[in-house]
Amino acid sequence: MITVGILGGGQLARMMVLAGAPLGVRFVVLDPVADACAGQVAPLQVGAFDDPVALAEFAAKVDVVTFDFENVPAASAHWLAELKPVFPNPAALAVAQDRLSEKTLFRELGIPLPPFADIRSRDELAARVGEFGLPCILKTRRLGYDGKGQFRLRNEADIDAAWQALGAQVEKTGLILEGFVAFDREVSVVAVRGRDGEFRAWPLTGNWHVDGVLSASLAPAQASAAQHEKAMSYARRVAERLDYVGVFALELFCRGEELLVNEMAPRVHNSGHWTSDGAETSQFENHIRAVLGLPLGDTRVLGHVCMLNWLGRMPDVAAVLVEPSGHWHDYGKSPREGRKVGHANLREDSAEALAAALERVGAALGRPAQVAPVVETLRR
Amino acid sequence: MITVGILGGGQLARMMVLAGAPLGVRFVVLDPVADACAGQVAPLQVGAFDDPVALAEFAAKVDVVTFDFENVPAASAHWLAELKPVFPNPAALAVAQDRLSEKTLFRELGIPLPPFADIRSRDELAARVGEFGLPCILKTRRLGYDGKGQFRLRNEADIDAAWQALGAQVEKTGLILEGFVAFDREVSVVAVRGRDGEFRAWPLTGNWHVDGVLSASLAPAQASAAQHEKAMSYARRVAERLDYVGVFALELFCRGEELLVNEMAPRVHNSGHWTSDGAETSQFENHIRAVLGLPLGDTRVLGHVCMLNWLGRMPDVAAVLVEPSGHWHDYGKSPREGRKVGHANLREDSAEALAAALERVGAALGRPAQVAPVVETLRR
Ligand SMILES: Nc1ncnc2c1ncn2[C@@H]1O[C@H](COP(=O)(O)OP(=O)(O)OP(=O)(O)O)[C@@H](O)[C@H]1O
Ligand SMILES: Nc1ncnc2c1ncn2[C@@H]1O[C@H](COP(=O)(O)OP(=O)(O)OP(=O)(O)O)[C@@H](O)[C@H]1O
Repeated sequence: MITVGILGGGQLARMMVLAGAPLGVRFVVLDPVADACAGQVAPLQVGAFDDPVALAEFAAKVDVVTFDFENVPAASAHWLAELKPVFPNPAALAVAQDRLSEKTLFRELGIPLPPFADIRSRDELAARVGEFGLPCILKTRRLGYDGKGQFRLRNEADIDAAWQALGAQVEKTGLILEGFVAFDREVSVVAVRGRDGEFRAWPLTGNWHVDGVLSASLAPAQASAAQHEKAMSYARRVAERLDYVGVFALELFCRGEELLVNEMAPRVHNSGHWTSDGAETSQFENHIRAVLGLPLGDTRVLGHVCMLNWLGRMPDVAAVLVEPSGHWHDYGKSPREGRKVGHANLREDSAEALAAALERVGAALGRPAQVAPVVETLRR
Repeated sequence: MITVGILGGGQLARMMVLAGAPLGVRFVVLDPVADACAGQVAPLQVGAFDDPVALAEFAAKVDVVTFDFENVPAASAHWLAELKPVFPNPAALAVAQDRLSEKTLFRELGIPLPPFADIRSRDELAARVGEFGLPCILKTRRLGYDGKGQFRLRNEADIDAAWQALGAQVEKTGLILEGFVAFDREVSVVAVRGRDGEFRAWPLTGNWHVDGVLSASLAPAQASAAQHEKAMSYARRVAERLDYVGVFALELFCRGEELLVNEMAPRVHNSGHWTSDGAETSQFENHIRAVLGLPLGDTRVLGHVCMLNWLGRMPDVAAVLVEPSGHWHDYGKSPREGRKVGHANLREDSAEALAAALERVGAALGRPAQVAPVVETLRR
């Protein structure tokens, strides 16, 4: 029996294990934290991602390696790849870990994106702000997530404030300045590529963020056919250039008919969580199929699906489960301010039925604001 | 966090764990065998079902108890119920463990069934054979499964042969004689009842057995609306009388418009395995929801679904996964003659698309005979 090793033991690993087990594989999860939630469903090895002894022990237990956590040191991924097959390949992972590398790749591939520049000093920041115009966003090149490590510049005075906030990171993570996109809405494409090069993508997903963190997703997104097609073609170009194997996501901004890429996530992605209950094959299963070299599953959406993220602590489960289409995903984590602890999926055959279900759930949970933009989109 | 204890660690426990984990619960599985396949996805305690020390240790670890294995000694279930809530309740389990008790109950509830009689001697057997006519079937009252512990009597001479084969069981398991039903087809109803009495059932499922073991299931079954309704009402009567909590199955014979009950399985059932990929909520998830006292999920079938059982060893996975609607369930067991090692589910929107998919899979796996009766039914 094949054993899949997963670097990182959070909810993504947990859901990969639950979806992958029916394929007849075993899992081992490596995580620095002893109560990593994937450890409830698979053997957990506690160890640091940069500890050679832990990595060697981990490699000895598994047949193939993949990731729940994209910021595993590139050196560790390379080192593991000498011992066992690693998917996605470490070079692809390294590109996706660095906003400058990924954006440079997008530009090379002819994928539209906002202007960006590597920033190494306060003077360079000031010069680029002059070039791009305001507003714009200064971000760490590496290790950012959920909107952390970002500073939005609205006026000239913000140049000093931004440098004060992030200047110290220039050596550690690098910095990148991006032009600000006054987008109408945010969408993502979640896609998968097999070991034999087979490529599939789920329909475009609409996403709503609150304070930089995903709050709700809707599939299929309300976007034009041309935008759907463009997104698929961008995802395919990226996957082929990187010889990518597994699931990844491209986050995109829609501005009118324009589609601009924001970033790439080299793993199963929060905006693909709806696929567990609303697609013929989930992103988690298809990722494991890809990693094992199995045929990829159908990525069609079944009706209309909404995912609602739960942060901090789980709300009342019954309010969701009384909905005929309500599905619950509790990651088994202890509550903590702002922590992603679970999500719900609601699936209905029609847009209106989904809107009505969301209104009921929003009211029952006292969270009308979380469902409102999705309901509005569904009724537009 | 709530911990659910499961007595028995086979594929049913494994699938309950995989479907139940997203509800945010933990599991502990008790099984006498150290490599019980549910142990790959949940903590396994190795111990005998009738060992008071093992049971006490198990009870201390869990908040609520349920079953993967219906033949747990009734005394053990009763004893556990003094310590922790047990679902289904031990009295219901005891009825379902004994063919004589369950058939007596069916008769009391006005559910049609073939004639049956408790058999305690060779003379009694001869007398009842005379009464029921030939053919008929002598079965052990308890501990039979997959057609084991049965003897079919076709002529007078078989009375001695049957007594020779099973007479020794009369003290240990008891014996029951049943009239033989020349059925057109076999169906089952898989149903669930919540702690608050809420009742739901999945659509009637058509089943094909080979050598007494389930080979294929089709949902929805091709049966009349009246038969669907009758089956639902029988299941509800049984559940309410037993104050049953959780999933159970009634196996039924169709003879023209007649519907005769064969037996009850007090647990998730092989003929409900299609629900993992073809119903809004699977039998495994709904069983755990019921046991936890959560609202029950929608039992609607999504299109047409066929389940194919794999016995002995797993066939080629790729032949199923190339089908857009193909889903794989490998129980992680080592191969053994006749052992249930996994199954596949195929789901399509139309009956004809499912028939075509089954033909392709049957051909690719060299198993045309397994799919043929299902294809024929779908095209009838
Ligand atoms: N150039 C931009 N123009 C406009 N808005 C932006 C821009 N970059 C980021 N944002 C906003 O900030 C959010 C988070 O940014 P980004 O995705 O770069 O950060 P992250 O920390 O990698 O987030 P995540 O972990 O959710 O992927 C975006 O979803 C978007 O709403
Ligand atoms: N009275 C009967 N008349 C005709 N066929 C019967 C009768 N009883 C059993 N059979 C046949 O034998 C099969 C197995 O019988 P039964 O369900 O009683 O046994 P089991 O060992 O409990 O099986 P399982 O584990 O599959 O439930 C039935 O599915 C049916 O095909």
